[in-house]
Amino acid sequence: MDIITIIGLVAAGCTTTSFIPQAIKTIRTKNTSGISLAMYSLFALGTLLWLLFGIFSSNLPVSLANAVTLVFASIILVYKIKYR
Amino acid sequence: MDIITIIGLVAAGCTTTSFIPQAIKTIRTKNTSGISLAMYSLFALGTLLWLLFGIFSSNLPVSLANAVTLVFASIILVYKIKYR
Repeated sequence: MDIITIIGLVAAGCTTTSFIPQAIKTIRTKNTSGISLAMYSLFALGTLLWLLFGIFSSNLPVSLANAVTLVFASIILVYKIKYR
Repeated sequence: MDIITIIGLVAAGCTTTSFIPQAIKTIRTKNTSGISLAMYSLFALGTLLWLLFGIFSSNLPVSLANAVTLVFASIILVYKIKYR
């Protein structure tokens, strides 16, 4: 595996898993005052469209990464709507 | 342009621009109590690596999208460190 592919895989790992600590913090504290509703609305819509793009183009890495991100981004969005 | 490409472009537009309203909110309010430091540390590192991946693989859309996202994610990260 070449260095560019490794950089891409580590990059995907970082951006995909980064929403997990935010979701845990939001669930624990229910503090959503500093979180932007516009950001999570746009971001959840974007990851849903990325997931559809991945499924329609038979791209498993794109589908998997965005399925994981969509779960955690949706949790944060639901908490933001419920506890704003 | 086929429908799958259009879905991918709209997806990229949503996820890339979603950090702009969060950065504006964070700059205006300086309220970062609900924002996860771990999320923005991981996410900024991830977008930096995506940018390097895009540059090294001569992929202009990946480079451009992640350059934009990196700017706004870094602003939020700096505010989180400064005003936590």
